[in-house]
Amino acid sequence: MDNRIGHYNFTVEPFSEDYTGQLTWESMGNHLLRCASLHAGRLGLGYDSMIRNRHIWVLSRLVVELNRMPRTWESYTLNTWISALYRQFTDRLYSITAPDGSAYGYAYTVWALIDMDTRQPLDLSRLPGEGLTGAVVADRPFPVKGPGRIRVKSHTALRRRPTFYSDIDINGHVNSIRYIEMILDLFPKQTFDHYAPQRVELAYCSETYCGEELDFFVDQADPLCYHIEARKTDGTTAVRAAVRFRPLECTQTDFPATLLAAGPSAAQDQ
Amino acid sequence: MDNRIGHYNFTVEPFSEDYTGQLTWESMGNHLLRCASLHAGRLGLGYDSMIRNRHIWVLSRLVVELNRMPRTWESYTLNTWISALYRQFTDRLYSITAPDGSAYGYAYTVWALIDMDTRQPLDLSRLPGEGLTGAVVADRPFPVKGPGRIRVKSHTALRRRPTFYSDIDINGHVNSIRYIEMILDLFPKQTFDHYAPQRVELAYCSETYCGEELDFFVDQADPLCYHIEARKTDGTTAVRAAVRFRPLECTQTDFPATLLAAGPSAAQDQ
Repeated sequence: MDNRIGHYNFTVEPFSEDYTGQLTWESMGNHLLRCASLHAGRLGLGYDSMIRNRHIWVLSRLVVELNRMPRTWESYTLNTWISALYRQFTDRLYSITAPDGSAYGYAYTVWALIDMDTRQPLDLSRLPGEGLTGAVVADRPFPVKGPGRIRVKSHTALRRRPTFYSDIDINGHVNSIRYIEMILDLFPKQTFDHYAPQRVELAYCSETYCGEELDFFVDQADPLCYHIEARKTDGTTAVRAAVRFRPLECTQTDFPATLLAAGPSAAQDQ
Repeated sequence: MDNRIGHYNFTVEPFSEDYTGQLTWESMGNHLLRCASLHAGRLGLGYDSMIRNRHIWVLSRLVVELNRMPRTWESYTLNTWISALYRQFTDRLYSITAPDGSAYGYAYTVWALIDMDTRQPLDLSRLPGEGLTGAVVADRPFPVKGPGRIRVKSHTALRRRPTFYSDIDINGHVNSIRYIEMILDLFPKQTFDHYAPQRVELAYCSETYCGEELDFFVDQADPLCYHIEARKTDGTTAVRAAVRFRPLECTQTDFPATLLAAGPSAAQDQ
């Protein structure tokens, strides 16, 4: 067993699925973060040991690309490893596998280690002890494209969303995964009747604190792909995101003009 | 081991806590529902066997009262049993215990079994086979008050909240526990800096479907206790709720005029 790779087993329990019976993106996303935390801990660089020096791991990029999402009572394993180490960033990859070894999908994350007082990133090549150097697995196959560039041109917010107590996590700001929920919630239920998110990509730009409001701007790249930017009311960008949907019926080739609006008059409703 | 009582063990994993490091009410609540489902399954009356006859368990009342909420890495056990069986309702109780046997708290739930086509409740005394009759444990100590009567007189909504894809669960309507999140989110973060919800009580009146908007009306019973009603825009009541807070500092006796507003001018802000 290669100690540099962490394996974490899960089963989709009732009441962790969405209305279609698939594990929620929130559950999957928080499990990805949890396994990053557990695996960093095993490498001696977990939350507890970092916080003692007022250092904290901060998620900078997240890409999740799935063939399909596990359903109620299905088991899956999150396999995670460090694939690259830069001065200020480290790449952590995941494969999400079924018990038969087939892939539910993959995830690509980029992390920085931040000094809580100066808010400056630490030099990851100069961590105490062995640091992460011995943990890098550079050669493991990873068939999914990493984070790309996301630009949103729209100047009209599709929605303003306040933030509340339940949006913030132990880091004191809006939970990284909660943004996925906010972004998927821009689409009507009818979209999820016929399409599933296939690839969700986020670039975390600045932290949102409880009570701040977020405006969501959306560009449609193509009928199945949307670029989204969440900005605070002072204009600061909180996150940029891209969502690609796949049709649930494989034979479907005729897509509506937009997945942002419900019903046959979707194009006009925009 | 008394087979009529189900015991389910959990540990508070990272990323299932709120910003104070306590398990979220959403996680606790969904675990309560999950254990109801698992235990009903063990009694031969679980979701899977019920849905075959187009019958479904519907939560009618929920009370959760806690001495304290478990924190990161703490373990807890949900112990659950049927305490009473009526024609149209059954009471399911829970104790939530720490490994040393002390109580984190208790929960009281009331359920009906509904025919999905007629929307009518089934007669629980006439279930196939043994039904629930043999499962009733009437004599187990339960030191917490059951559901009470909640009336809200306010005619001014404190907030209008749309509902979205991520609010609905496998039953196709707003998740029962999601209402707790909506209700706690009526209070500012400052409230949770100094107070924790001690008792949350919900009466489920009608289902909310994705896209429906909820108006939240709030009466203050006393500085630490609030009665809340969520109504759809057509005036139908979705849920009635009561929340009681406890001060985090035990010695605190001087409460602000309201916990609904932040800051020292809270009373005037109302």
